[in-house]
Amino acid sequence: MQTRIEHDTMGEVEVPSQALWGAQTQRSIQNFKIGNEHLPRPLIRAMGLVKKAAALTNAELQQIPQDLSQYIVDAADEVIAGQWDEQFPLVIWQTGSGTQSNMNCNEVIANIANQKLGNPLGSQRPVHPNDHVNRAQSTNDSFPTAIHVAASLHIHELLIPAVKQLRNTLEQKAVAFADIVKIGRTHLQDATPLTLGQEFSAYVTQLDHGLKRIDQALQWLYELPLGGTAVGTGLNAHPDYAVAAAAQLKEITGINFVTAPNKFEALAARDAIVFASGALKTLAASLNKIANDIRWLASGPRCGFGELSIPENEPGSSIMPGKVNPTQCEAMTMVVAQVMGNDTTINFAGAAGNFELNVYMPVLAYNLLQSIQLLGDACNSFNEHCAVGIEPNREKIDYFLHNSLMLVTALNPVIGYENAAKVAKTAYKQGKTLKQVAVELELVTAEQFDSIVQPEKMVYPNSH
Amino acid sequence: MQTRIEHDTMGEVEVPSQALWGAQTQRSIQNFKIGNEHLPRPLIRAMGLVKKAAALTNAELQQIPQDLSQYIVDAADEVIAGQWDEQFPLVIWQTGSGTQSNMNCNEVIANIANQKLGNPLGSQRPVHPNDHVNRAQSTNDSFPTAIHVAASLHIHELLIPAVKQLRNTLEQKAVAFADIVKIGRTHLQDATPLTLGQEFSAYVTQLDHGLKRIDQALQWLYELPLGGTAVGTGLNAHPDYAVAAAAQLKEITGINFVTAPNKFEALAARDAIVFASGALKTLAASLNKIANDIRWLASGPRCGFGELSIPENEPGSSIMPGKVNPTQCEAMTMVVAQVMGNDTTINFAGAAGNFELNVYMPVLAYNLLQSIQLLGDACNSFNEHCAVGIEPNREKIDYFLHNSLMLVTALNPVIGYENAAKVAKTAYKQGKTLKQVAVELELVTAEQFDSIVQPEKMVYPNSH
Amino acid sequence: MQTRIEHDTMGEVEVPSQALWGAQTQRSIQNFKIGNEHLPRPLIRAMGLVKKAAALTNAELQQIPQDLSQYIVDAADEVIAGQWDEQFPLVIWQTGSGTQSNMNCNEVIANIANQKLGNPLGSQRPVHPNDHVNRAQSTNDSFPTAIHVAASLHIHELLIPAVKQLRNTLEQKAVAFADIVKIGRTHLQDATPLTLGQEFSAYVTQLDHGLKRIDQALQWLYELPLGGTAVGTGLNAHPDYAVAAAAQLKEITGINFVTAPNKFEALAARDAIVFASGALKTLAASLNKIANDIRWLASGPRCGFGELSIPENEPGSSIMPGKVNPTQCEAMTMVVAQVMGNDTTINFAGAAGNFELNVYMPVLAYNLLQSIQLLGDACNSFNEHCAVGIEPNREKIDYFLHNSLMLVTALNPVIGYENAAKVAKTAYKQGKTLKQVAVELELVTAEQFDSIVQPEKMVYPNSH
Amino acid sequence: MQTRIEHDTMGEVEVPSQALWGAQTQRSIQNFKIGNEHLPRPLIRAMGLVKKAAALTNAELQQIPQDLSQYIVDAADEVIAGQWDEQFPLVIWQTGSGTQSNMNCNEVIANIANQKLGNPLGSQRPVHPNDHVNRAQSTNDSFPTAIHVAASLHIHELLIPAVKQLRNTLEQKAVAFADIVKIGRTHLQDATPLTLGQEFSAYVTQLDHGLKRIDQALQWLYELPLGGTAVGTGLNAHPDYAVAAAAQLKEITGINFVTAPNKFEALAARDAIVFASGALKTLAASLNKIANDIRWLASGPRCGFGELSIPENEPGSSIMPGKVNPTQCEAMTMVVAQVMGNDTTINFAGAAGNFELNVYMPVLAYNLLQSIQLLGDACNSFNEHCAVGIEPNREKIDYFLHNSLMLVTALNPVIGYENAAKVAKTAYKQGKTLKQVAVELELVTAEQFDSIVQPEKMVYPNSH
Repeated sequence: MQTRIEHDTMGEVEVPSQALWGAQTQRSIQNFKIGNEHLPRPLIRAMGLVKKAAALTNAELQQIPQDLSQYIVDAADEVIAGQWDEQFPLVIWQTGSGTQSNMNCNEVIANIANQKLGNPLGSQRPVHPNDHVNRAQSTNDSFPTAIHVAASLHIHELLIPAVKQLRNTLEQKAVAFADIVKIGRTHLQDATPLTLGQEFSAYVTQLDHGLKRIDQALQWLYELPLGGTAVGTGLNAHPDYAVAAAAQLKEITGINFVTAPNKFEALAARDAIVFASGALKTLAASLNKIANDIRWLASGPRCGFGELSIPENEPGSSIMPGKVNPTQCEAMTMVVAQVMGNDTTINFAGAAGNFELNVYMPVLAYNLLQSIQLLGDACNSFNEHCAVGIEPNREKIDYFLHNSLMLVTALNPVIGYENAAKVAKTAYKQGKTLKQVAVELELVTAEQFDSIVQPEKMVYPNSH
Repeated sequence: MQTRIEHDTMGEVEVPSQALWGAQTQRSIQNFKIGNEHLPRPLIRAMGLVKKAAALTNAELQQIPQDLSQYIVDAADEVIAGQWDEQFPLVIWQTGSGTQSNMNCNEVIANIANQKLGNPLGSQRPVHPNDHVNRAQSTNDSFPTAIHVAASLHIHELLIPAVKQLRNTLEQKAVAFADIVKIGRTHLQDATPLTLGQEFSAYVTQLDHGLKRIDQALQWLYELPLGGTAVGTGLNAHPDYAVAAAAQLKEITGINFVTAPNKFEALAARDAIVFASGALKTLAASLNKIANDIRWLASGPRCGFGELSIPENEPGSSIMPGKVNPTQCEAMTMVVAQVMGNDTTINFAGAAGNFELNVYMPVLAYNLLQSIQLLGDACNSFNEHCAVGIEPNREKIDYFLHNSLMLVTALNPVIGYENAAKVAKTAYKQGKTLKQVAVELELVTAEQFDSIVQPEKMVYPNSH
Repeated sequence: MQTRIEHDTMGEVEVPSQALWGAQTQRSIQNFKIGNEHLPRPLIRAMGLVKKAAALTNAELQQIPQDLSQYIVDAADEVIAGQWDEQFPLVIWQTGSGTQSNMNCNEVIANIANQKLGNPLGSQRPVHPNDHVNRAQSTNDSFPTAIHVAASLHIHELLIPAVKQLRNTLEQKAVAFADIVKIGRTHLQDATPLTLGQEFSAYVTQLDHGLKRIDQALQWLYELPLGGTAVGTGLNAHPDYAVAAAAQLKEITGINFVTAPNKFEALAARDAIVFASGALKTLAASLNKIANDIRWLASGPRCGFGELSIPENEPGSSIMPGKVNPTQCEAMTMVVAQVMGNDTTINFAGAAGNFELNVYMPVLAYNLLQSIQLLGDACNSFNEHCAVGIEPNREKIDYFLHNSLMLVTALNPVIGYENAAKVAKTAYKQGKTLKQVAVELELVTAEQFDSIVQPEKMVYPNSH
Repeated sequence: MQTRIEHDTMGEVEVPSQALWGAQTQRSIQNFKIGNEHLPRPLIRAMGLVKKAAALTNAELQQIPQDLSQYIVDAADEVIAGQWDEQFPLVIWQTGSGTQSNMNCNEVIANIANQKLGNPLGSQRPVHPNDHVNRAQSTNDSFPTAIHVAASLHIHELLIPAVKQLRNTLEQKAVAFADIVKIGRTHLQDATPLTLGQEFSAYVTQLDHGLKRIDQALQWLYELPLGGTAVGTGLNAHPDYAVAAAAQLKEITGINFVTAPNKFEALAARDAIVFASGALKTLAASLNKIANDIRWLASGPRCGFGELSIPENEPGSSIMPGKVNPTQCEAMTMVVAQVMGNDTTINFAGAAGNFELNVYMPVLAYNLLQSIQLLGDACNSFNEHCAVGIEPNREKIDYFLHNSLMLVTALNPVIGYENAAKVAKTAYKQGKTLKQVAVELELVTAEQFDSIVQPEKMVYPNSH
């Protein structure tokens, strides 16, 4: 491979001739051959957004000339658009502040700009990666700002619409299934009836609540560390820079970003990420319940609950012909397992800051963004390939409903809890129906039984 | 031990003569000899509150006679007050719905009431544990209601005041230390200066944010499942019961409880607990940062950072005389480790509901309430025995400040990043001061250096 | 409360007159009002064992007089026996080294001994808590030694017998159910058949493997830090002390304890606990699978899988009469959730040591011992109240077996995977039997079908 | 994109013309657009190894013709060698059994073979993906076999050598630093001295133990499910197949693979993975301790502990010139955080099997292999770029040693614990040396002090 010589404060480095990155990125490539997990696209984009906002703000505050600002903005726009992702070769497992990725971004933007102006790669003129692109920034404030921006955008653009779509599908099912009375199950055991629509309405509420919780978590991600520079004091930044840069990011993205009220907290703590992961894991818990319910209710086709049919998307077995499996539920629950583990990683890393900086930023970003990505994608996939095609098996539902012993609960107010228990137990032991036993024990007449034990009247509050 | 014979729907059981509990509690004692973790006081109290509110509501809706309601209320008040905690002998590791503890509470309240009226224990007259105390309830709605009530009250009464008190102490320190300029540290390495007050202000902000996050989480705990009865339909409850019972609980406790908008979700999901734990673990992450910073800054006395002094509360070593250790920090960080694990337990359990019920309620309650208790107590202890007594070691702070190489950052805008780097590196290698080197390299004059490199001017935004 | 005055190196302290503990314990009571979790019995016992072994060894090496050693041994024996548990009032949330509990033990043993010799509490004569009871020890080596001893003994005495007993019960079931052919289920969907005995044999193997993994983990707990004293150097201990004290503990307990090969590791790292928790969480995962399978197979009684019957131990619902729930499975899976969370706590704490000591010892001990206790108790409870009473519902099992479409797999080698798939799908869509369809499609004759598709011949390897 | 038409049991699918995969893979691409995490290289390779071993065994047992077997082996060898990784386009978030990836592998191998024989892609002749490549296998046994093979090989080839190399470097340091006496630190506070070599010897022992624990865990990964086919019965496999196929894998890889003793456990449980992750997280805890110690001891350069120098690999700050950070330690501790989270994911997924299969296999494989990869790579990187270059700062070490108050511990046996405590406290308060105070208090003479308090004599057991 052909190389060119770059230098930084530590000396010379050979960089591939055509690389837009420079010395510091190259050092990181060589020093951190760990894994294969790179900065995800949403984070590269967000770094571009931060550089753009900083350049605009620095020009506005007359910290850099207008033309240099414009060169940076133009280059940053290309990074934002995803044109240069392959120029971000670094892995997550680098310095804990993300300094090397921040410098990577500085170097790439400077080179894009300088190259357009006819200068060779590495010339650092007229746009200097530190003095201009990184102007009034430290990695310590710009990298966590990029994480907050990336997570906020990804939640808004991917996760929230995906959850809403699934929620809407489930609500349509809840409405469509509103009149289907079925047996309830608690402790996996037969319980009193409810409608299939009511069962699905719980899922809708879980997701509605989940959306609101994510919204609560977003509020903290909106607080941006930018302007704190190295340790939170704002050293080498204009006094108006923090507020103005946050306003720029709000303007560019349409998200309600604000400057963090306390920059020392904003650099030293990553609590907003810890809390955001707390909202995501709660959503994951909800989705686990929903996906599990659906695969259990669809279990069978002949030897399970079999109350629901779900779409057949692919052959299910390489050995058992004709087998169809709840694979979307499985993908979803695997995603849930991943999100739960990501939450542990985030807790471990988020709690481990020292003094003026938390140096677990790349791993925090990686896990947070992966959780957002996987939950969003999984909701979309589950919605399209499973939820929309869910259909009730009315025959099976009816069969269970009318065989259940828990309809006896309707007799409680009339014959008392203990007599009702006797009826249920006797019916179970003797393989009889509740009605047979209740009449045999002379607790009610057949007519009374029929008028009291009507499953469709047991699905709403009705004391006597 | 003398016993009396009680019976339930499964037959006879021998119960200790003087026990206020009955057959179902006794069966649980015998069937679940697992561990030694009992229902915590806040949960017993909350079960009493739920029984009281139910009795008042049932009377109001004419579901039980006024006098029976009053007997129940009076007995419940004693349970609420903590007079009968030893009558709740069951462990956490029982049925996952908490049915046995709910029946325990029903039995105890019925027996207290009936005994006062001169009837023997176990008479179930005039107050019947199922038909009256448990009226219009199932464990499936009343037990999770009790968990929500317990957690909400315990957060309001213990945790929030404890966090606020610690926050106030730290704010006082931030104010008191506002003028103490010290060296900052990022990556554990010397960085640019800030004031000790600024450093402490980050802790204050972390706790302020933590309080608001807890408030966000509380909103979901305020939603009460009561009125859903067995599977969420409200079977055997009066149509007005759910709303009225929640209003009663709000009235009694002064907390903004409301009836859950969807009772199917309210029984089947425990997402509010999962999210609340997410807020608690975020607070734990904050406290870990704070406690760690303080113990590192107080490390020494002679061979560590030594910038802070903390109170000497006890001898530190059974072998090393005169040793004083940061034990309050250690207690706090152990509590943090516990809360992080509790969060994992809650995630595991909260995600594992099936169909109409989540049957991990006792373990969810145990972990949530333990996290609240430990965080609250630890904040109080840390505040009283550590935070209030924190003092700066000005001599050490000054020594570090003036020896640090990172003051060179102030030269960036004047001599550029690369020259500044050269100054710092040369000073480090040659054991010289920054000033010596900067002047020797003819980058600035001594006078210029003195006017530019003033630590006290490096602690706020100041571009040039 | 009447008090006496005690003193330590920090001054005077008021201690309850009758308390066997002294100044340092009392300071901890006052300084750490956090939670209510006390040192568990197995740990108090183990501290007694360590003090006994140390006293014997110190006498043997002529470090303390024989008579003093004997006084200490006699007092320690009472602590070991559990006579003085109420004299250990400290909570887990104290100093992270456990110094205060170690001193508590030193003080209690000294006072027991001195009191027997007619000296007043607090006299510290002739047995001094530091100079004699703690002789040649630091908390830093004696407390983690006590944790290793406690965990090893508790695993041997409680957990291993409990797992073995459950394993034996399940093996008896596996043998008893060896001839019951049933439908298999993968992805919750009907699959090819196996015997119920084979299904249970998997559980037996899981527990067998679990026992061996615990044995692998025990090996590391057998390595004792004792002799490292304050930082691992063994300062103030006789050169032969470490080996001799470990030999004493082996002799007293019958467990293969050895002195840790590297005392610096033995003090600074708690890796043996982290790994032991890794073995316990693996056992927990196994038990989760077993308990879940059993409750799903017992689901119903009429609207679930219903292949197994489990004992009815208690009424299942406070509102639904006659309901019986898989409560032992629920207790087990709640214990599993707890053990998983304890593992996270242990990981967090075990990774957080610094320099010569890990100061998360009490929380590590608490979680490790709780996991051992709960897993042991839960296995015993599950065995006695559930596993021994498991019975197959042969009718239901047969019904499912003969209705399943997955028997078609037996046709694979004869008609090929794709034709077999067509048979299964057609049967499902048309509600027919496999035989009907296979014959209609002229893929096999009825006689061929009967000779090939025999479920009882599908439960072992049999290629063609 | 040009496509060809493939079909499976569910109908026709358009597949890219040049793709080696077939219908089932294509369906998965379309149905699971979730995330971007693909099967890692070690798993693709292991699937190739399993197909090769199966083909060889099937030929040996005369289940498929010798020539077909050879075609499969040749094609599998190319997959093993990594020539066709881009033909494995599926993500982790698919069916929980990995069926689609297993079919992907079957399809690719069949197409490679058939193409070589001049047949078009998708011809399925002469090598059929199901009937030949997947012969005597189900995904349910072959996919977990591949996971065990992949993890075992990756541990042997990457992780163990990496840990050993780091261990050796640290041992060299321990030897080189054997005579450097330094102050010990417990609770972050000054303690009695030890040598720097002793401190490093703890790290060596941690890694030695870690290697043995990994070896203990490997034993369970060596047990292969292959031969269990669909549900563990071995249906459609030759009775000798399981043993012979495991022997083939042992022969091919040189690893001690054996057939799992119970195939029902081997399919339904993934406990071996849960336990392996337990060993990995223990190693992670060890590495966390080591990396943390090193970065703290290297903290400074002027305002920290500064006892160690570590290599300067890159500029540390985009704003603070000349800053050098412990970036290899940071990468390592971020990896640790990831491994801890992966462990939680594995616990969650490993505990969630039902009946005859655990359907969390892709996510289990992904996390296990990521943990192995990251730990291995991080050890290599940390070794090369940090550990080998660690040097002591003797001046700083000496300065601390001789200033510490904890040398007073050496006086314990002579003047007693309480007097020694008084000396230390007085020296601290008055800013004096221990010697000054001890002599002033007339506890020892200056000569006695010098002969007793010799740090270099305090680093081994030495009672009096």
